[in-house]
Parts: sequence; structure tokens; C-alpha cells
Amino acid sequence: MADPIEFYFDFSSPYGYLAAKQIDTIAADNGRTIKWCPILLGFIFKVTESKPLVQVPLKGAYSLRDMNRCAREKNIAFSMPDTFPVNSIAAARTVLWAGQQMPELQQKIIHAIYDAYFIENIDISDPTAVVDIASKIGVDKHELNAALEDKAVKAMLKTAVDEAVEKGVFGSPFIIVDGEPFWGHDRLDQVTRWLATGGW
Amino acid sequence: MADPIEFYFDFSSPYGYLAAKQIDTIAADNGRTIKWCPILLGFIFKVTESKPLVQVPLKGAYSLRDMNRCAREKNIAFSMPDTFPVNSIAAARTVLWAGQQMPELQQKIIHAIYDAYFIENIDISDPTAVVDIASKIGVDKHELNAALEDKAVKAMLKTAVDEAVEKGVFGSPFIIVDGEPFWGHDRLDQVTRWLATGGW
Repeated sequence: MADPIEFYFDFSSPYGYLAAKQIDTIAADNGRTIKWCPILLGFIFKVTESKPLVQVPLKGAYSLRDMNRCAREKNIAFSMPDTFPVNSIAAARTVLWAGQQMPELQQKIIHAIYDAYFIENIDISDPTAVVDIASKIGVDKHELNAALEDKAVKAMLKTAVDEAVEKGVFGSPFIIVDGEPFWGHDRLDQVTRWLATGGW
Repeated sequence: MADPIEFYFDFSSPYGYLAAKQIDTIAADNGRTIKWCPILLGFIFKVTESKPLVQVPLKGAYSLRDMNRCAREKNIAFSMPDTFPVNSIAAARTVLWAGQQMPELQQKIIHAIYDAYFIENIDISDPTAVVDIASKIGVDKHELNAALEDKAVKAMLKTAVDEAVEKGVFGSPFIIVDGEPFWGHDRLDQVTRWLATGGW
């Protein structure tokens, strides 16, 4: 069995959302599963001495235009949320916890949270909103509420972010295929070709 | 006659080089000419509070790997020069001056300087090296040496960089097609599609 595709993403990342919308098909077409790895760019940007793209002079205005253009090109529903960037800690904890407790629901939860944020303009920094989204997929509200306050779940996210940095992950989306790193939704063509050919 | 494709680039930019290797064909296939616009990222990074990609923690190591992978994917000869990033002022002045004095040679000069730097590992921060490269294409050494010290040529580059910033240019390559901005060699597919369709 081939290794899963490691898909690192922040729920606050528009390009992470655009890539998440495409990676399922890419994985399935190549007989791969996906290891979903939520990260927190806020922490990683301290390591890379960076700041959110939209806050960079000139680059910020361009990136907003580019995100919309890339979404239209791929026919992906997308609108910039009112709250942006957003604190994605509750969403990330939910995904890691679900990966342990109910792995069969994890992928659905991820897409539901991303859609809520980038299509429905729901402020996912609010844990209540995240719990509502997950409950519609079948997650028990009480269990998730407890999990979001659980020290072990908090520690799991911290460890996940630290491990991502150790692997060289510095942005979202960041995709690792058989050890080869790809940064950006604009590397999905290369990811697809790498999966098909084994690299060049 | 359709407007030219505006191609902004710094000679110090590996991704600018990779795009320069592809833009001639894209332009010709779509019946367009190219307006070559050399810029100096060093000045622009002050505006965007940025620094050279390879100097950013984590991102630097990745970008070196990515540049080589992108070059191999497109079968473009490429090796990181020993002197990097490089002062590209003499090269940029040469291109702007040639555009005025001998426009029929400008494109050849650009490719010759880029090839010297990214294939032959020639330190193009040395004006003598740039003059040597240009002279092989038919540029008179005395004339170019004089131009590189000409106040009007120096002012031309300063104005060009200022105008680029005013247009929102913050990186290399940066390509404008009929007013639509595209940043990065990884947007060449979109540039091609935009030229063919008029946009989406």
C-alpha cells in the first residue's frame, strides 16, 4: 500500500481551501489516501518571520485578486470571509480529535468547516460554530465540546504544528508525496504528475 | 494591434529566468509582442517589507528545491549561481538602454544575460561581464560602457522601478496582460489561457 499524501493546511488559508477542493480527486485517481494535517500559520510565521499574505503591501491586493481568479478558473465557490485571517485553533483541534475518534468522518468535517468559512461566511474562530458544523455531520456536541477543552487534544495540535515545522512546512497548502514537498495549490499539477510518474 | 505583454523581471530571479525561457513562445503563439521591464527587487522589497526568498527560514531551502524541480520539469538548463542574489543594476540598465537604442537586439541581450548567470555561472553584478555578454551580440563596448555611467540611463531605471511599484508589481516574474496582473512563473498557464480567451 502506497503511503498517504500528507496534506498540511490552515483553515484560515484560501489557497488551502482551493487545494482541499481538488486533492480528494487527485488522491483517488492515483490510488492514494490523504493524511490530513491541520496547522496554525500564526505559529509557523513566527519561525519564518512572515505575516499573512493579504497584509503584505502590494502583494496583499494582488493575492485577493488571484484567489478569486484561481477559484473561478476551477469553478470552485469562494468568497473572502468578513473575518480574515481567522483563528483556526478550534477547527484544527476538531480535525485532529476526529482523526483519532471517528476517522471515517474526518474528511467530511474538514470540507464542512472549509465550506462554512469560505462559502457561507461563518466565523469559524467561534468554537460554537465549529461544533455546530461538526454536529450536522454526526459528531456529538457534548463530546466535541469536551474535546476542545481537553489538554491532550490541545497538546496534540501543538505537537502537530511542531512536527510540521520540523518537516519544513511553512505555508498552506503544503503537500508531501513520498517525501517530496510541494508548496501551494499551484503545485497541484506537479503533485499529480509526481504521483503518476514517481518524480523527475 | 493587441497590446504587448508586460514582462517584469529581475535578473537575480530564478523564477524570472524560468519564465523568460517560456514567454517568447507564449507571446508568439498568441500574436503578441513583449514589453521587457527589468526591475530591481532590492528596491521593491523595501516597499513590501520582504526579503529574498532563499533567505526566508524553511521557505529558502524549499525554494531552492522547487526551482530545480521546475526547471527539470520544463527541460530548462538551470543551476544556482555562486553569487546569489546578485546585484543586477548593470544588467537592468543595459536592457533599458538597448530598448531605446537597438530594440531589435533587446530580447537577445536579455536571454544572453540570463543564460550567462543561470547556466554559465557568470557574476553579472560586474558591469564588465555584462558588457562582454552584450558585445557578443553586436553591442559596441564603448557605447555600452558610456551608457552604464550615463545619468539619463540611471534615471531611466529608477523611473522604471518606481512605475512598476505604482502598477502593483512586487515580484519577479510579474506579467500584465491587458491590465490583468499575474505573479510567478507558475501563473504562465493562466497567462496563456487569458491570452487565448480574454479572461474569465
